[in-house]
Amino acid sequence: MSRYRAIVEYDGTDFLGFQRQAQGRTLQGEIESALQRIGWPGQSILGAGRTDTGVHAAGQVIAFDLDWPHGDDSLARALNANLPADIAVKTIGAAEPDFHPRFRAKARRYRYTIYNAPTRSALAARSSWHIWSKLDMNKMQAAAQALKGTHDFAAFGTDPDDGVNTVRTITQAEWTAAQEWLYFDIEADAFLYRMVRSLVAALRRVGAGGLTVAGFQTLLEARDRAQCPPIAPPQGLCLMEVIF
Amino acid sequence: MSRYRAIVEYDGTDFLGFQRQAQGRTLQGEIESALQRIGWPGQSILGAGRTDTGVHAAGQVIAFDLDWPHGDDSLARALNANLPADIAVKTIGAAEPDFHPRFRAKARRYRYTIYNAPTRSALAARSSWHIWSKLDMNKMQAAAQALKGTHDFAAFGTDPDDGVNTVRTITQAEWTAAQEWLYFDIEADAFLYRMVRSLVAALRRVGAGGLTVAGFQTLLEARDRAQCPPIAPPQGLCLMEVIF
Repeated sequence: MSRYRAIVEYDGTDFLGFQRQAQGRTLQGEIESALQRIGWPGQSILGAGRTDTGVHAAGQVIAFDLDWPHGDDSLARALNANLPADIAVKTIGAAEPDFHPRFRAKARRYRYTIYNAPTRSALAARSSWHIWSKLDMNKMQAAAQALKGTHDFAAFGTDPDDGVNTVRTITQAEWTAAQEWLYFDIEADAFLYRMVRSLVAALRRVGAGGLTVAGFQTLLEARDRAQCPPIAPPQGLCLMEVIF
Repeated sequence: MSRYRAIVEYDGTDFLGFQRQAQGRTLQGEIESALQRIGWPGQSILGAGRTDTGVHAAGQVIAFDLDWPHGDDSLARALNANLPADIAVKTIGAAEPDFHPRFRAKARRYRYTIYNAPTRSALAARSSWHIWSKLDMNKMQAAAQALKGTHDFAAFGTDPDDGVNTVRTITQAEWTAAQEWLYFDIEADAFLYRMVRSLVAALRRVGAGGLTVAGFQTLLEARDRAQCPPIAPPQGLCLMEVIF
């Protein structure tokens, strides 16, 4: 048996998130079914990030143990042939025997996409959050700068392991605009539960004028999740890359 | 009653094409239902192009007659509120009383998207044709040049009105590439039934080396549909613009 590491892309629309559930279609469940069809004897794959219902990935990383004497390209082809159209293995390769994508990850990068136009888009409905009122990108960019560095982000999420550590280090937090599209790229050592969607909801409020840049800074420092606006919807979020 | 003209965007994945059918979900059926919910007394909208099952539109044009005293923006909002997420009205405005989007159109522009990479994409599965073998863009571009101008395109489609006129005038036929993405943009006065998908299938064969540029020219001149490869799949095709 060798340990393999794969980069996986998925359209999260029709999944109840990454993690296997007793009921319902999950990424983990579908990937494990595909692996079993090509002879995988395992019980559970390892994943770098447990994306929520409706959240996408361009660069999720998984690991599993398998005997496969036919080469990496052949393994990727066999898996893709057994996966549904909304999941694809992008690359696959050998990993160290104890490689664990979640514990070994040094950082993760997410992108959140807003479609900022007076009327909604049908072609972008599955992959963006439609905001009809014009957002002030300069203010959103200024507020995002306050996030960089090491802070207690308790205002924007909870510890996914039910612990109490809500301190994280953000190395990138930038907005870019292209016509009606606004992209928020954020990289951190790790994220709290629903942290990116909470941040985007608060930054959107800054862009819409309902919160000042200083008020955003105060929100961060208050460390009180009850003061944060309701989280942004899942379809705008995509796990872009896991960095080791 | 005033005649309105609207630009409509849709994700064609879950539709049995534009034209209303006795059974099944169609663009025309859904748009007419939304109009009826806001008080439209009509029986049938007019559309510029009858896109097939699974084909998308960024710029379909429709027309209908309605009494609406609240202004164009309010009409767009009311329609979007009553349309499903995979259909959106982009703009709406008054038209001449006899405006017919199909008969008044001077030209149509379509885009066909190929995802040319060794492994398929999950995020692009609904909007592109995956070709794993490397395509030769120079050859595809050279072959596409032969299409420009007025020709009998009987090799690539049939008259949608069951007539015998298969002569059309193509004013644009260009490939552009961006990383793994290949885009074929084509504009003509009008198109034959399944013409773009037939052209893309034949051009793809040129790109893959199974047909020479000269062979493509011969195929066009032979005017024999039986010699054309099977048509490209619908999900790569999008009606971009109708020009009046």
